[in-house]
Amino acid sequence: MAELGLALLLVGLVPVPAGAVWPQPQLVRESPGGERCRLSPGQFRFGYARSSAVGPGCAVLDQAFARYWRLLRDAGPRAPEDTRPWEPLCTELLVSVSTPHCDGFPDMDSVESYKLSTSEDPSLLSSESVWGALRGLETFSQLIWRDEDRMFYLNKTNIMDFPRFAHRGLLLDTSRHYLPLRAILETLGAYNPATHVYTLNDVKLVIEYARLRGIRVISEFDTPGHTLSWGPGAPGLLTPCYAGSIPSGAYGPVNPILNTTYQFMTELFREVSTVFPDFYLHLGGDEVDFTCWRSNPEIQAFMQWMGFGQDYTKLESFYIQRLLNIISSYGKGYVVWQEVFDNGVKVKPDTIIHVWRENAGPYQQEVARVTKAGYRALLSAPWYLNRISYGQDWQAAYQVEPLEFEGSLEQKALVIGGEACMWGEFVDVTNLTPRLWPRAGAIAERLWSNKTVRDLQDAYIRLADFRCTLLRRGIPAQPLFTGYCDAEYSGF
Amino acid sequence: MAELGLALLLVGLVPVPAGAVWPQPQLVRESPGGERCRLSPGQFRFGYARSSAVGPGCAVLDQAFARYWRLLRDAGPRAPEDTRPWEPLCTELLVSVSTPHCDGFPDMDSVESYKLSTSEDPSLLSSESVWGALRGLETFSQLIWRDEDRMFYLNKTNIMDFPRFAHRGLLLDTSRHYLPLRAILETLGAYNPATHVYTLNDVKLVIEYARLRGIRVISEFDTPGHTLSWGPGAPGLLTPCYAGSIPSGAYGPVNPILNTTYQFMTELFREVSTVFPDFYLHLGGDEVDFTCWRSNPEIQAFMQWMGFGQDYTKLESFYIQRLLNIISSYGKGYVVWQEVFDNGVKVKPDTIIHVWRENAGPYQQEVARVTKAGYRALLSAPWYLNRISYGQDWQAAYQVEPLEFEGSLEQKALVIGGEACMWGEFVDVTNLTPRLWPRAGAIAERLWSNKTVRDLQDAYIRLADFRCTLLRRGIPAQPLFTGYCDAEYSGF
Repeated sequence: MAELGLALLLVGLVPVPAGAVWPQPQLVRESPGGERCRLSPGQFRFGYARSSAVGPGCAVLDQAFARYWRLLRDAGPRAPEDTRPWEPLCTELLVSVSTPHCDGFPDMDSVESYKLSTSEDPSLLSSESVWGALRGLETFSQLIWRDEDRMFYLNKTNIMDFPRFAHRGLLLDTSRHYLPLRAILETLGAYNPATHVYTLNDVKLVIEYARLRGIRVISEFDTPGHTLSWGPGAPGLLTPCYAGSIPSGAYGPVNPILNTTYQFMTELFREVSTVFPDFYLHLGGDEVDFTCWRSNPEIQAFMQWMGFGQDYTKLESFYIQRLLNIISSYGKGYVVWQEVFDNGVKVKPDTIIHVWRENAGPYQQEVARVTKAGYRALLSAPWYLNRISYGQDWQAAYQVEPLEFEGSLEQKALVIGGEACMWGEFVDVTNLTPRLWPRAGAIAERLWSNKTVRDLQDAYIRLADFRCTLLRRGIPAQPLFTGYCDAEYSGF
Repeated sequence: MAELGLALLLVGLVPVPAGAVWPQPQLVRESPGGERCRLSPGQFRFGYARSSAVGPGCAVLDQAFARYWRLLRDAGPRAPEDTRPWEPLCTELLVSVSTPHCDGFPDMDSVESYKLSTSEDPSLLSSESVWGALRGLETFSQLIWRDEDRMFYLNKTNIMDFPRFAHRGLLLDTSRHYLPLRAILETLGAYNPATHVYTLNDVKLVIEYARLRGIRVISEFDTPGHTLSWGPGAPGLLTPCYAGSIPSGAYGPVNPILNTTYQFMTELFREVSTVFPDFYLHLGGDEVDFTCWRSNPEIQAFMQWMGFGQDYTKLESFYIQRLLNIISSYGKGYVVWQEVFDNGVKVKPDTIIHVWRENAGPYQQEVARVTKAGYRALLSAPWYLNRISYGQDWQAAYQVEPLEFEGSLEQKALVIGGEACMWGEFVDVTNLTPRLWPRAGAIAERLWSNKTVRDLQDAYIRLADFRCTLLRRGIPAQPLFTGYCDAEYSGF
């Protein structure tokens, strides 16, 4: 039969503080008297403050107001509204945004800080950007809790909050298994879920759906490796491998010695650059296998002619260099996997190096090397959510400290954040969501909250509570451990 | 980025033999000419052969006919029926059962063998029992395949089949996380899915639902350990733990020295015995922690009085012995976890010892010890499906050979089979089904098919195909590896 973890079994019984917020905000001051107001969906509204530079017609906030109001309304049966007339009602949350921008996209430099005060009615949420307001609305929605009669309450609280890292990403792999659009949208934060190709409209839908939630969409088109499936659609693009003096019929990475290859990339990335609004494109550049290049006589000749000797990383660099120039010509910045840096490709100073592996020592050393060279680092190595293991593996992800490496303050400042990865070898629509949630939440708090927020038992209680919140929103997040939620998953 | 498993990537491209069956039947003879007939749901029916001892009114088969016919009908869009008039149609499957029993329950001695011939129309399925007929119907449904125009075809085939082991079980844990009834029913083979307590009616529903699918339901009520949650409901049942000379307020296992304890068990198991029709009850008996017993002065006194010295396994045996006598008095047989055997409790000769752990050496040695003592062994140790790991962990489960231990032929004959376990620490309705399927299928074939059926690449191709079958039936079975199914999961 099954082994127990009694310690945590007990933790499971500890009550959750009402209105716990995940991830932990930077500064929370609860009213010492524990004062609260009662919140009745029928008598509550979201609105814009007079001082706000954006108002009705700002889709990002109009639609967010509607989403969060529906969450309240759909939260299930309640005691009759009028049973507690003596309790003060909270009737309104007023939002004030100081910059008048609504239609843009969130980017690396977006200011996501916000201030939230629920100590008086109406509650006030102020931020510089609509993106900060979105973060504050999520926090507000988590501050609302229910008593045993399922009445909504809001504690008098003041919150000052901002993210610790600018980049707090999730990588979804739609190549190894096709993910239906609805699975992608749900992952971006939908709470009401609605042939293996994404149309241009699909992509636009995802981008706008993400924008309305303050989420950036960065596409990766990985070359020259990992392109096997491109072969049939682009004859001549891949390198023909040789068995001795004759082609073996197999194909290797993109063929870096043909002009047609670069014409192809120019066309491909012209479209990609226009379809994806984010300044950054992810260009891959990882795991290039040189075996096939080595076997090809034309490649060998090219190597000789270029004076590359037997160093095929030089050939890879040659390809990447030209690819990067193409991307630059479209005015885009790029993210590349660490191999591109390891192989000494000359990249633009604003390149982001994506750290994913422990080849030369632990990933901390790679982060140190990357930042010492003056490049910005994006951390994924410890956060491969597809690599499951038995038990509470969220704890290891949670305990990671991204700035724990040998380097100057300047170097630490070059770590822009991290990205949880969900590679698709063993994941598709059937198991994506429970595998992703609430484990991704552990990484979210590490990247948003203060460095000092890392107590495992406290996090367990709050993350288990956050998981219940996800269930209430119709997202089948798997359990952290034993125990139950007031509202179990019902979408089943 | 993500590591690849190229070898299996390629395997993924190998075409599946049309009409592959999982688990592999004992004997399959396909028509050498590859002759086939076309099957049109509108013009196909299941029926009883004249020779059959059971006929219309036999719920087990009537309802199975309806289920499998619906599977055909709901299998999605097809080319127009009349496009290929020249092809021979298969219009009927006639079932003949030789024993006239329909209303009973499957048991350890049920004969599940069957013969199936689709070489002529009507196809013929003959078996001794309705349970064998159910197995044959599932095989028949898997023999039907579709061409690129989504037309149904049935190859001319002769199959002679029987299970290698009588007990091919799945253990579901409903204690650590509550599983909604629908999740349990779906797990029992539903392909169209409908407060944390199972009512008597729920239990009856599960038992009948299982019976109609030829599945036995064996309940486990685990004592004297794992009973912490019983405490509040049954004051005085658990042992009060002591800190020095005073009760610590904590409670331990069931208190084995009180008559009231045995009165409680007499009542409990009187009801359990009547509610669960199966001859066997699982009585648990695992992981008894002696710390609390040791701390309790009354227990200490009892130990002395009984002359048990400091050997608390003697006290545990004392409890189990009395419990087993109670069960026997209800005319029931029992299954116990291996500790009961390890501690030398005197059990009835027909007791089944459930092997789950590797305490004194590998589990094979425990199986050897159990069978050498003349008891029947049920194997679960290598089949804990809740213990997930990254990658294709179905392969390890598949490669287990239950009879691979040192012992006589008589001993091997005492291994009644195995049971896949899905303990609930980290599993609930949100992740049960994808975690269970298709991994449980690997164990199903090991326990049903011939010992020689163990080629991993062949199994990969057929199991991946079986997983697609599950998706078509609306069960969100997770992917084995990269690749896709014609009909992806749509229940999302």
